[in-house]
Amino acid sequence: MKTTKKKVAPAKTAVKKSTKPIILITNDDGITAPGLRNLVEAMKTIGEVIVVAPDSPQSGMGHAITINKPLRLDKVNVFSGVVSYQCSGTPADCVKLAVNRVLHRKPDILVSGINHGSNSSINVIYSGTMSAAVEGAIEGIPSIGFSLCDFNIDADFTVAKHYAKIIVKRILKIGLQEGTLLNVNFPKLPMSKVKGVKVCRQAHAKYIESFDERLDPHKRKYYWLKGEFVNLDKGDDTDEWALKNGYVSLVPVQFDLTAHHAIQHLNSVKWH
Amino acid sequence: MKTTKKKVAPAKTAVKKSTKPIILITNDDGITAPGLRNLVEAMKTIGEVIVVAPDSPQSGMGHAITINKPLRLDKVNVFSGVVSYQCSGTPADCVKLAVNRVLHRKPDILVSGINHGSNSSINVIYSGTMSAAVEGAIEGIPSIGFSLCDFNIDADFTVAKHYAKIIVKRILKIGLQEGTLLNVNFPKLPMSKVKGVKVCRQAHAKYIESFDERLDPHKRKYYWLKGEFVNLDKGDDTDEWALKNGYVSLVPVQFDLTAHHAIQHLNSVKWH
Repeated sequence: MKTTKKKVAPAKTAVKKSTKPIILITNDDGITAPGLRNLVEAMKTIGEVIVVAPDSPQSGMGHAITINKPLRLDKVNVFSGVVSYQCSGTPADCVKLAVNRVLHRKPDILVSGINHGSNSSINVIYSGTMSAAVEGAIEGIPSIGFSLCDFNIDADFTVAKHYAKIIVKRILKIGLQEGTLLNVNFPKLPMSKVKGVKVCRQAHAKYIESFDERLDPHKRKYYWLKGEFVNLDKGDDTDEWALKNGYVSLVPVQFDLTAHHAIQHLNSVKWH
Repeated sequence: MKTTKKKVAPAKTAVKKSTKPIILITNDDGITAPGLRNLVEAMKTIGEVIVVAPDSPQSGMGHAITINKPLRLDKVNVFSGVVSYQCSGTPADCVKLAVNRVLHRKPDILVSGINHGSNSSINVIYSGTMSAAVEGAIEGIPSIGFSLCDFNIDADFTVAKHYAKIIVKRILKIGLQEGTLLNVNFPKLPMSKVKGVKVCRQAHAKYIESFDERLDPHKRKYYWLKGEFVNLDKGDDTDEWALKNGYVSLVPVQFDLTAHHAIQHLNSVKWH
């Protein structure tokens, strides 16, 4: 999809006053990704939508921010009736720019996605989709990352849209505890097979990694990361279990990374 | 500093058998950073050191990994008597490549840094230094990120080296709880003013961000991120408090991001 750039500066108040909730949308697959388009369609039925998304895919960017080079921010005409900007930075940059230079206020909710591919279990660490939601939560915005367990470019987002609407409406009503956000993953299933939403914890899983070793045309070696996902967690209260058993997984996430349970033990150590 | 590249493939067993612990070192400031050189000097007194570090600075890269392009890995001759590689990827990539293609085993400990600048409180989220340590912990390697609260290129690493040695020796002896790693920050103080090591939690802090808006030579707008750090946390058990009061801060960190305390509340919500 080609986007139309307008060389117009972000207006001081890009968003009209509205009684409807203001919903900021971003993602990490880039502004032309079908997952983003589907999320915009779903959220338009709930509130006033603003999109600030990367101008190119940013998968695997983790919580990267751009500090050593300038950022571009251009108004684009991608979604009918929706104020939209593309940004040259990462998902976290998009959130910072959206709040500071587009909205000039906090949105009522931030939704990121819908990611093409799972962000369950350990994927949350590497995910640009989730880093945008973490950035929102740091800013004090109720924030949710949505991901569909289907990498396909023409994946079916029917289930994802249906449940995203339910979850966003509920969170707009009840809010989220300070310092927390949601990581929501949708199974790759038709609507009739989905059993509902399950609140879970992040499964203990990892990638058994390896690197393809290849030679470039100049006979110089290069490496390409590949990895096999391994769920090490037998619990039936995890996101992996939920997705495998036909549920939408909903994990509350925090950005306080302190391993509080380890403090007492470490306090008993002599550090001199 | 100029590094000398040798077009030699990583040997199948780059590391000689040794009774000394194998210490993998990486960072996010790049292989020529003084902080890395100082960490190598300190660790050489403890064990057999292997360096796999980025070939260019990667600050602010968060937990980025490189999945959509190839990685380069070149043996370099930077540190006398230390097997060293530079890598074109992120700190997390360096750890994956080190374990898979250089060591072909897990090191006894992974140390990342010494970062030029603080990674206390919310900085842990954005830090490439810490992402390398998180990656190590995911791999089951006892891992520590070290940072000095001094951005200066010719910062004094005396205190950092002294305490890094103490902490690494201790962790080699007692290990770390599964799923945890350490985030260690050194205050910018002379040795005589440092009171010791304090086990802490991550302070609740954030950046009040703004963007410089500028015009490029073609009259097109660009934005540059700047931010003011604000500690919102009055606790005397935080890393910010410790650093401000003359201590080395030591925070146990976990990569399970689940906000376990929020699960019960979310379970009481109707999601249909």
